[in-house]
Amino acid sequence: MTNPTDPYLTAKAEWEATTLKETLAQLPERQENFVTTSSTPVERLYAPKDSSYDDYMARLNFPGQYPYTRGVHASGYRGKLWTMRQFAGFGSAEETNRRFKYLLSQGQTGLSIAFDLPTLYGYNTNAPAAEGEFGKCGVAVSSLRDMELLLDGLPLDRITTSMTINSPAAIIWAMYIAVADQRGIPRDRLGGTLQNDILKEYIAQKEYIFPPLPSLRLVVDTLEFGARELPRWNPISISGYHIREAGSTAVQELAFTLADGIEYVKGGLARGLAVDDFAPRLSFFFNAHNDFFEEIAKYRAARRIWARVMKEKFGAADPRSWRLRFHTQTAGVSLTAQEPENNIARVALQALAAVLGGTQSLHTNSMDEALALPSEQAVRIALRTQQIIAHESGVTNTVDPLGGSYFVEALTDRMEAETWAYFERIEAMGGVLPAIESGFFQKEIADAAYRYQYEIDTKQRTIVSVNEYLSADPIRIPILEMDPQGYERQCARLAEMMAQRDNKAVSRCLADLRQAAQGSANLMPYILDAVKAYVTLQEIMDVFREVFGEYREPNFL
Amino acid sequence: MTNPTDPYLTAKAEWEATTLKETLAQLPERQENFVTTSSTPVERLYAPKDSSYDDYMARLNFPGQYPYTRGVHASGYRGKLWTMRQFAGFGSAEETNRRFKYLLSQGQTGLSIAFDLPTLYGYNTNAPAAEGEFGKCGVAVSSLRDMELLLDGLPLDRITTSMTINSPAAIIWAMYIAVADQRGIPRDRLGGTLQNDILKEYIAQKEYIFPPLPSLRLVVDTLEFGARELPRWNPISISGYHIREAGSTAVQELAFTLADGIEYVKGGLARGLAVDDFAPRLSFFFNAHNDFFEEIAKYRAARRIWARVMKEKFGAADPRSWRLRFHTQTAGVSLTAQEPENNIARVALQALAAVLGGTQSLHTNSMDEALALPSEQAVRIALRTQQIIAHESGVTNTVDPLGGSYFVEALTDRMEAETWAYFERIEAMGGVLPAIESGFFQKEIADAAYRYQYEIDTKQRTIVSVNEYLSADPIRIPILEMDPQGYERQCARLAEMMAQRDNKAVSRCLADLRQAAQGSANLMPYILDAVKAYVTLQEIMDVFREVFGEYREPNFL
Repeated sequence: MTNPTDPYLTAKAEWEATTLKETLAQLPERQENFVTTSSTPVERLYAPKDSSYDDYMARLNFPGQYPYTRGVHASGYRGKLWTMRQFAGFGSAEETNRRFKYLLSQGQTGLSIAFDLPTLYGYNTNAPAAEGEFGKCGVAVSSLRDMELLLDGLPLDRITTSMTINSPAAIIWAMYIAVADQRGIPRDRLGGTLQNDILKEYIAQKEYIFPPLPSLRLVVDTLEFGARELPRWNPISISGYHIREAGSTAVQELAFTLADGIEYVKGGLARGLAVDDFAPRLSFFFNAHNDFFEEIAKYRAARRIWARVMKEKFGAADPRSWRLRFHTQTAGVSLTAQEPENNIARVALQALAAVLGGTQSLHTNSMDEALALPSEQAVRIALRTQQIIAHESGVTNTVDPLGGSYFVEALTDRMEAETWAYFERIEAMGGVLPAIESGFFQKEIADAAYRYQYEIDTKQRTIVSVNEYLSADPIRIPILEMDPQGYERQCARLAEMMAQRDNKAVSRCLADLRQAAQGSANLMPYILDAVKAYVTLQEIMDVFREVFGEYREPNFL
Repeated sequence: MTNPTDPYLTAKAEWEATTLKETLAQLPERQENFVTTSSTPVERLYAPKDSSYDDYMARLNFPGQYPYTRGVHASGYRGKLWTMRQFAGFGSAEETNRRFKYLLSQGQTGLSIAFDLPTLYGYNTNAPAAEGEFGKCGVAVSSLRDMELLLDGLPLDRITTSMTINSPAAIIWAMYIAVADQRGIPRDRLGGTLQNDILKEYIAQKEYIFPPLPSLRLVVDTLEFGARELPRWNPISISGYHIREAGSTAVQELAFTLADGIEYVKGGLARGLAVDDFAPRLSFFFNAHNDFFEEIAKYRAARRIWARVMKEKFGAADPRSWRLRFHTQTAGVSLTAQEPENNIARVALQALAAVLGGTQSLHTNSMDEALALPSEQAVRIALRTQQIIAHESGVTNTVDPLGGSYFVEALTDRMEAETWAYFERIEAMGGVLPAIESGFFQKEIADAAYRYQYEIDTKQRTIVSVNEYLSADPIRIPILEMDPQGYERQCARLAEMMAQRDNKAVSRCLADLRQAAQGSANLMPYILDAVKAYVTLQEIMDVFREVFGEYREPNFL
C-alpha cells in the first residue's frame, strides 16, 4: 500500500533524523514498547499517507454508506441519540419493577433485564439447584406470573427491552410476548433484544445447558419466528462482551464475535431462510474496555468487516443486512473494589469511546459493581454519565468526529487485518463449532488473560489503586440492601400459581412440546402456548434437558 | 483553499443527495443547528479535502516542529507525562502543608498553591480588610514565616511549584526564593510558575489593585529577574482560565489570552530585553470546558498561532520562544452543586480533552468544589482521574492521536481564523491596554456569558441535573472542615514575629523599596531583601498602594 515516493514518508524520515532524534537524546521514552490494553504495539506517531480518493471511498466512505466505517446512520447522533439502557435486575419481580420505574423517571430511554442464576440455568426459584442464588445477579422469573409483575405498568409499546438470557431465551421471550398479547399490543409493535447468543457461552461465559447443536436450533427457531412475527425485535445479540470479560484481547473479542455471527447466518441459511429475511435483525454487543482508541477502532472495524462479510460472503442484497448495529457495556472487569469512586472516571472514558465508536445503545456500569449490586444512587450516577456525554460534551454534534485521524484509521485497518487472519484460522478448523470443541477459542482467551494478569502482577501495566496509587481510606459508599422477604414471597407465589392453574392444560402443553422437540419443528409456538398456560420455566427446560441432553466441556488442559 | 474539482467534494455532494437525504426524510435531526459549548456551528460531517503535502507541512507538521500543531515534544507523553498538579490551599500554612504532603504521597507530581483572598489583595491575616476571609479560598501567607511553614519538608529542588498569585506575585515569589536560599538550594535549580498575569484580572477576574501600567511594570520586573537568575522558572502563566470562567467562548479565551501574551512580550521588549532571553519562559494556562473537541482544537490552535506570532511578528529565532507550553484546569464553572458525584464524570471528560490537546500540566477539579473546599477524599478521586488517563486509557502511547481527524483539523483551522480576526480588532483599538480601558473584552465576555445562560434558562442547552435530569436525593458526600483554631494561631504567630524581628532593618528595607518604586529600577532585589528581613506582605503592598495608587474600573454600562 505504501508509495515509495510518498512525500509524507520522506518528511517523516527527515523528522525522525532531526527533531525526534534530539528529543530522544535529551529525554528517553518512558518505556521501550508502548502497547494497547490488548498488548497491540502502538507506534510513536501516525502521519498522513499519500492516500487517494479511491482509498477513502473503499475504506471509509460516508456515514450510512457501505462499508459503514463512519457509522450506519447518515446523520449520526444528530437524529437520535443512542438508547440509554442500564442493565438492571435483583431480587423479586416487584423490586426490579420499581428499579425500572426509577430509571425511566431519571431519563433512561430503554430497559435491560438481568436475570438471576437459577433463571439463567432454567430452574425455578424453589428448586434445590437454585438454593442461595435467588435474585443475586438479577431478577428471578419462574413463570408468566413473575413476568406480569416485572413488566407491570411499563409501556411495552413505547420502549424497547433488552433481555440478557441465553439457554432459556426462547421461553423468557415467549413470556414477554405473552404479556404483550394480554395487553393487546400488536407483536409488530414490540421492540427489543434477546441476548440469545449461545456460541459465546461455550467460548467464554460457560452458561450453556445443552450441547451446541440443539442450542443452535433453539436460536434459529427464534430467528425464524422473529422474522415472521416480530419485525422490530432483534432475536439475538451476538456478544463479544463476555469474551472480553473472560480476558480476551480487543481483536479476539472482535474476531470471535463476528465469527459467531457468521455461524448464526449459516444456521439461518441451513434452515432455508433467505439471508435478507433475518440478517437485518442480527444485532451485536461489545465491551468498552480501558484503551480509548483501541475500543473506538474496534467498533469501526466491526462495521466494515461485517458489511464486507454480509455483502461479499453471503451475497446479502439489502443494505440493512450489511449494517452492524451494536449495544455496548463498559467493562465490568475493569472496575476496582478499591476506591470505588474512581470507577466513575473509568466508566466516563469507556462510555465516551463507545459513543465515538457509534454505538446504538449503551450501559454504563455503576461504581459499586465490584462490591455489590448497584445501589440506586450508583446507577443514577452511571446514567448521568451518559447524559453528560449526550448533552454536555458536544461529541454528538457531528458524525464520526474521529474519522480521518491518522492513528484511529491505522488502528482500524490493523484490527481489521488481524480479524481476517483469525477468520482464516477458524475456517481452516472447519468453523466455529469444531473450534469450540477443540478448545481453540478458550485457549486463545486464556493465553491473553494470563499475559494481561502477568503484566499487572509484574507492574509492567499500572492499574490505579490496584498495583499502584492506593490509599488506605475505608470504602464509604452506601451498598444496596435487598428485601429480606423476597425469596419467601416468590416461593409462595409460585406454589399458589401452580395450585391454581389448569394442570391438565399444563400436561398437554408439555407433551406437545416434547414431541415437537423430538422432531424438527420451530419450537416457539409450542413454548408460547405453554407459558400462556403458566407452565413454569423449569418445567419447559426439564423437557429440553431430557430430549437434548446436557453438555459438559471437555478438559482441554 | 477548496479545489473545485476535488473528488471528495463531488462524492460528498452525491452522498448528500442520496443516503443523507433518505435518512433525514425518515428521521429529522434533533435540532436545526448544532453548536459547541461556545455556540460555534458544527457541521454534520467533516470529510477529507484533497489536501496536499504542502498543506500538511504548513498547518500541522510533525510534533516538535514549527508550528507545533501536533505538540511541542517530538515524543509526546511517551517521554514524560504531564505534571499532575492539584491546586490546593486552605486555612493556615500548617494545614496546607499537610495537604501537599498527602497529595505527594498519593502520586501527585507537582505543587500548586492557592492563596486566600487577603493574601491575593495584599493584606495580612489580622488586617481589618481581611476579616472573615482567612483561609477560605486558599492558604494565608502574610510573611516569610508562613512561607517557611508552608514549604516545610517539601523537596523544592526536585518538584516544581505553581503559585496562583497576581498583584502580590513578586512578593510571594521572593518569599519562595528566600526559603530556597535558606536551604542553600541554587536558584537555577528552582522550577515552577507564578501566575502573575495581571492583564486578565482587568479583563475577567478583577483581582487587580494598581492601575495597569505599574502592574505591568511589576510583571516585567519578574520576567527580567527570572531571565537573569531563575532560568527554570516560568515567571508568568498567561491565563485564559479566568476569562473562560467569566463566561467567554473558547475562541475568546484563546484570542484574549494570546493577545495578553503579545502585550507581555511588548513589555519585555520595551524594557530592552531580547525576545529570546525571556520568551522561552512564558507559559500559558487554559481552561478545559465541556465541549470535548472544541477544547482540543483550542489547544492545537493556540500552539500554532503562538508559534507564528513569535516567529513572524516578533522575529524570535530560538525555537523555544515559538513553543507554547500550558497548564490546564478543568472548568470549575461547569461543576454542579446538584448531584456532585456527576462532576467526577465531567472532570474525566474535560481532563481527557486537555491531555489529547497536549497539556504540560493539569489540575482536575474535585467533585465537591461547587459546595466547599475540596475534601481529602474528593481531591484524591480527582488525582486518580489523571492517573487513570495516564496509565489505563492508553492515550499517552502515541503522539497527538487526533492529528488528521477531519473534524478536529477543521475546528482548529476555524478557531485559528477567528483568533486572528480578534487580534485585528484589538490592534485597531491600539492594543490590549486601550481595549481594557474601553471595556472591549469585558463586554465581549458579558455578551457570551449572557447568551450561554439564556440558552440554559430556556433549555436550548441541557445541563444535566441543573435544568434537566435532577433527582431529589440529598447530597451525601463528606465536606471538608477546617481547623477552627487556625485563624488565632496565625494572628498570634504574626504578632510574635513582628515583635521579634529587627525592626530597624524593616524600616530601612521599606524606605529603600519606596525609593526604588518611585524610580524605574527592577524591584525584585528590593522585595527579596525586605521579605528576608520578615517585612510582611501588607507592609510591602502598602508602599506600592501609596506609590502606584489603586485602580477602579470605569462603569462601562
